[in-house]
Amino acid sequence: MRRIERHASFGGWQDVYEIDSTALGVPTRVGVYLPPQAAHGRCPVLYWLSGLTCSEQNFIAKAGAQRHAAEHGLILVAPDTSPRGEGVADADGYDIGIGAGFYVDAIQAPWRQHYRMHEYVVHELPAWVEGTFAANDARGISGHSMGGHGALVIALRNPGRYRSVSAFSPIVAPSKVPWGAKVFAAYLGSDRASWNEWDACALAGTAVERLPLLVDQGLDDEFLDSQLQPERLRAACEATGHPLHLRLRPGYDHSYYFIASFMGEHVAHHAAALS
Amino acid sequence: MRRIERHASFGGWQDVYEIDSTALGVPTRVGVYLPPQAAHGRCPVLYWLSGLTCSEQNFIAKAGAQRHAAEHGLILVAPDTSPRGEGVADADGYDIGIGAGFYVDAIQAPWRQHYRMHEYVVHELPAWVEGTFAANDARGISGHSMGGHGALVIALRNPGRYRSVSAFSPIVAPSKVPWGAKVFAAYLGSDRASWNEWDACALAGTAVERLPLLVDQGLDDEFLDSQLQPERLRAACEATGHPLHLRLRPGYDHSYYFIASFMGEHVAHHAAALS
Repeated sequence: MRRIERHASFGGWQDVYEIDSTALGVPTRVGVYLPPQAAHGRCPVLYWLSGLTCSEQNFIAKAGAQRHAAEHGLILVAPDTSPRGEGVADADGYDIGIGAGFYVDAIQAPWRQHYRMHEYVVHELPAWVEGTFAANDARGISGHSMGGHGALVIALRNPGRYRSVSAFSPIVAPSKVPWGAKVFAAYLGSDRASWNEWDACALAGTAVERLPLLVDQGLDDEFLDSQLQPERLRAACEATGHPLHLRLRPGYDHSYYFIASFMGEHVAHHAAALS
Repeated sequence: MRRIERHASFGGWQDVYEIDSTALGVPTRVGVYLPPQAAHGRCPVLYWLSGLTCSEQNFIAKAGAQRHAAEHGLILVAPDTSPRGEGVADADGYDIGIGAGFYVDAIQAPWRQHYRMHEYVVHELPAWVEGTFAANDARGISGHSMGGHGALVIALRNPGRYRSVSAFSPIVAPSKVPWGAKVFAAYLGSDRASWNEWDACALAGTAVERLPLLVDQGLDDEFLDSQLQPERLRAACEATGHPLHLRLRPGYDHSYYFIASFMGEHVAHHAAALS
């Protein structure tokens, strides 16, 4: 591992590391915020999954989460959104390939060689975090848009690994909307039944663990009707009794200004479950 | 004026406008944060001047100031750092020309045609703000690096116009360090005595108004010794009895991670003077 950046931040440290990922088969960058409490003992970890086109930089620069993490004593871990670099497959469009890993494990060529973000985020990354920093194994996960999809799917697919989950503006039914359907066809193939394993609305119907889902969604989000459709998640959770706290926020859009406005509430939600 | 961006943020609105500036002779962009209180009455205004290479975007995206402005009921106004666009003089280097207006009124060709940031920030911009938004005439000013220089110089040069001033990592003695000397020679000419009118350390010796200066400076700032030299400001203020609260922060660097960490304290400082 190589430390690429280190900045003092709210009494702790905002670092960026490059690690050689086995799951991805390439070096990958990850933002790690160590709160002041990590100098004195082990802290819980909140993982953040970013959206389309993002790297590890967007969250660490714009979300204002360090302040809240320092208050509650949480480590923040923000991985990249896909493998990238030499030899990594890509395609035209911001919504497929580099910057658009969708937190799945691809099984179709040419994607399957490197696009294994689920394996990386769920197993390899926590093992590295918990073996490298003053982290305990209390894990929460959150994210935005494509990363909100990732957070919900990862928590629902992996009972027992996460104590808390939340999402901002998530793609709740990727099987049913253009962003998800395009990528799932490429990464997972044409068998639509298999897509359900990567679809929060489908998973909410079969989850064995009733982890409550906290979701914030801006009502002036430019992707609300075309790609996000939070009412699908409400319907899926109501049908199966899965606990959901869906908050619709008038006036807010899809940007980090929305995320920053409610980040404090999300961090507090995770801290209550993790501490 | 044209509204370029509008984002809901902490119960208020983070906008970006493009206005046709008479002082600059070109259209210029400015970030305006309207706190929730501005929907119900007039609010004081805190002006923010950014550093080299920045536009209006850096502060509004990275400083996390909206949260604090919403708490205290302050409008935030973040102008660009220089004129830019067709016909605006430029030169090689990030530290002169576009992105490096230094908040002076240039008198040398080719700069004097558009580089009149002092006139724009001190007179034209507040007149537009106070005539357009629910703003009263209680003004504070702050900034970072080149913008910290700008904030200190503008407050010291214009007694009675600002009720509060603060700076992060300011260039306190531009006449004496490479960043300032290069630009002052270009914008103001070779008469070094005239540079004192744009140098916070020189102005602190002659200011008729004893407005307290609040300055935060990171001790791991990569420009501390070469360009910033806060001890010069301490010496100048001690020599003349000008009130200075200089806080040296171990571990912190020159980045927005430093600014965000102490933005709450600066906004509270301004709010106490402005409200």
